[in-house]
Amino acid sequence: MAELLPELIDEVVSAPERGEQDNIVALVAAQDTDDVALLLESLPLEQRLKVWDGIPKRRRLDVLVAMRGDPRETLIAATDIDEWEAIFFEVDAEQLLELSDSLPNALVDKALDAMDKQQRQYFTDASQFSDDQIGHWLSQDPLVLPLNAKVRDALRLIRRDVPTHADTIFLVNRAGQFSEAVKLTKVMGLPDHVPLVDLSEETFDTINAEDELTLASLMVQRSGFASLPVVDEQNKVLGRLDISTASELLNEFYERQVMATAGMDEDEDLFSSVPKSAKNRAVWLGINLLTAFLASGFIGMFEATLQQVVALAVLMPIVASMGGIAGSQTLTLMIRGLALGQVTSSNVKALLKKELSVGGLNGVVWALVIGCIAYFWFADPMLGVVICVAILLNIIAAAAAGVVVPMVLHKFNIDPALSGSVILTTVTDIVGFVAFLGLGTLFLL
Amino acid sequence: MAELLPELIDEVVSAPERGEQDNIVALVAAQDTDDVALLLESLPLEQRLKVWDGIPKRRRLDVLVAMRGDPRETLIAATDIDEWEAIFFEVDAEQLLELSDSLPNALVDKALDAMDKQQRQYFTDASQFSDDQIGHWLSQDPLVLPLNAKVRDALRLIRRDVPTHADTIFLVNRAGQFSEAVKLTKVMGLPDHVPLVDLSEETFDTINAEDELTLASLMVQRSGFASLPVVDEQNKVLGRLDISTASELLNEFYERQVMATAGMDEDEDLFSSVPKSAKNRAVWLGINLLTAFLASGFIGMFEATLQQVVALAVLMPIVASMGGIAGSQTLTLMIRGLALGQVTSSNVKALLKKELSVGGLNGVVWALVIGCIAYFWFADPMLGVVICVAILLNIIAAAAAGVVVPMVLHKFNIDPALSGSVILTTVTDIVGFVAFLGLGTLFLL
Repeated sequence: MAELLPELIDEVVSAPERGEQDNIVALVAAQDTDDVALLLESLPLEQRLKVWDGIPKRRRLDVLVAMRGDPRETLIAATDIDEWEAIFFEVDAEQLLELSDSLPNALVDKALDAMDKQQRQYFTDASQFSDDQIGHWLSQDPLVLPLNAKVRDALRLIRRDVPTHADTIFLVNRAGQFSEAVKLTKVMGLPDHVPLVDLSEETFDTINAEDELTLASLMVQRSGFASLPVVDEQNKVLGRLDISTASELLNEFYERQVMATAGMDEDEDLFSSVPKSAKNRAVWLGINLLTAFLASGFIGMFEATLQQVVALAVLMPIVASMGGIAGSQTLTLMIRGLALGQVTSSNVKALLKKELSVGGLNGVVWALVIGCIAYFWFADPMLGVVICVAILLNIIAAAAAGVVVPMVLHKFNIDPALSGSVILTTVTDIVGFVAFLGLGTLFLL
Repeated sequence: MAELLPELIDEVVSAPERGEQDNIVALVAAQDTDDVALLLESLPLEQRLKVWDGIPKRRRLDVLVAMRGDPRETLIAATDIDEWEAIFFEVDAEQLLELSDSLPNALVDKALDAMDKQQRQYFTDASQFSDDQIGHWLSQDPLVLPLNAKVRDALRLIRRDVPTHADTIFLVNRAGQFSEAVKLTKVMGLPDHVPLVDLSEETFDTINAEDELTLASLMVQRSGFASLPVVDEQNKVLGRLDISTASELLNEFYERQVMATAGMDEDEDLFSSVPKSAKNRAVWLGINLLTAFLASGFIGMFEATLQQVVALAVLMPIVASMGGIAGSQTLTLMIRGLALGQVTSSNVKALLKKELSVGGLNGVVWALVIGCIAYFWFADPMLGVVICVAILLNIIAAAAAGVVVPMVLHKFNIDPALSGSVILTTVTDIVGFVAFLGLGTLFLL
């Protein structure tokens, strides 16, 4: 079993202190490619480059392919132009497709020059699809035979080399259109002359090259097969999507969702340079600042009230925060539901009703609790009533916004995971402050 | 290709309006199990039960197994005790393991009674492992042959039935300990008498039954094989983990992370009953209320100041919110790094340094911007200076807390995805309010 990643990182990071820098090369050489990629991502820049220098040139391409975009680019930037010939020695179309966004155009051309004609054609074909279409990411090595092929043809095909996670032969007609699929294990031990169509699967899905990544990946994950054929509009087989790629694409989908909630993307480097990282994050801080000033602007409308009843200033963050928390729960549920296709225009009304009821129930309970505490804290029964009503209003508004905001963003093809929470908390901040300070102005002055 | 889920949902939801309730049974019957499960999860309770009633009893077990915990339990609760005999007609150990947490004990016993002895033994064996160990989730149908087996034995084994995603035969010694693995495709077309050991893979990982789910799943995803053997401490083969299960476990891991940030779990039902949902979420609201009151307590210490300089009340949410946003970016990066094993005690110091530098840089920039705006808004240069310094302090504190809080939680085996953001925003709220109001008290009175 591979050495566990955290232990590997600890060993490499502490090597210089222990005067064992030289052993690192051997240690890294013994790890598999994915672990080397994860290790490099986990090292501070200076050490990352040192370890990178110790990796043989022939191995570097695989390692780069396995890394996330941002940390990968730190290594590409540090690699001398002369070294690329050796790195691109055996580059293929799939590797270049994975890397091309990280590489300067000149290097993409260099890699294309190093490829044979067939691989170059693969690269051109896949580049016609955008990187959110499955056609961009397919494997171009499906096991394909004509419809009239027999067991002996299958055996001949397999004797060469069976690609990873290819467990079926796709049978195509003369136009190259997908027709049937035959599991390799069904062919085993049968006489040579048996026609393959007699062994074909009853139901077998195909993926359209223009399909969206997550849905296509889920289809493969659920199919029970190791790969499904990817076809064009004419049903011609372009390649296959295997379950390992599908699983990685799903991981990336979820990572994107997690990172998006904090305004970052999934390629973010743990140890990116300080200016780059600061720049990446500044945008998000700036957007949030706008919304914070907006909320402050609403508070500013009640300056006179705040001056007279300072307890309102003390308690107002509670009103805003309870709305924000309640809203983010609804929002999180909605984001998942929309991403998985489980929330649609037909069931969203029922969902809104349910979330409003949940908000109403929790709103009443917590509004009473908070109202009582405020009453005892400031010995002012009317203050208790005011905060009680404001909390209730804000939690209900939060439930409504938690359903409506992501639904509207989704309609406009904006990822609710990215911008949903900014908009939601703006709503809950403003409703919270206005309700609380407004009611305060009416009943406490 | 299967009908797309959102369209299916729309059709089922709108059927009663269109007077087509009867067609739903046929429509649902035509969907595959996973889509039926997703459909049921997406329906409001009343309609969910109606569709459930139309599903043949023999199919219900598979559908329940494919569903999330909470929505599944609504269906279990609505199913009459007499119906279970038909539902459990062909229940196996893996299905019962998936369901057992959702089922009342009496029903688990009923299911065990319906199983044959071997399946019952499987269930008992797997139940010895907790549900965060891979031994609980393994498939107990590996292709196993003795070390001295030949190609003919492999063919005989395969001719029966090859389980889904089993692409290798595990060769074991007399004690049942794992020794070698042979890819099925390597056996094809070879003479009967060839010993299987001659065809075995050079390197092949095994998973320990006590391994944690995510790491074990990643091992399978990266292995290039469709399943890896799961062994006990004596290296005896207990079963296998296949790549489809691994991929589903990874999906669940990420879903848990996403849902945890809002204090929910991955089994949360889109349409759970209002009291249940309100109860689930109340805990999270309560915890956040405590922290909100804590922050208010700190604001309360500055009542006298707030009364004299009401601008502080207007601007204080900005100071808190900028800290919260900056901190949540660092926290999100840390949570991912810790979950993937990329952040360890050896590189966390370098990470802290980087995050403090990023925070310092962004802090200076945004502190100046906010300081200027505050100065012009309230025509008070000193107020500009005060908010400028408070913002800088809070963004730097946020960076420190964003690294330290999840690290400490991780050390104590508490999931930072769940409690990290509550603690972090408590820190940034308090630091923000105290710094801003404290400096205001010193320099503005």
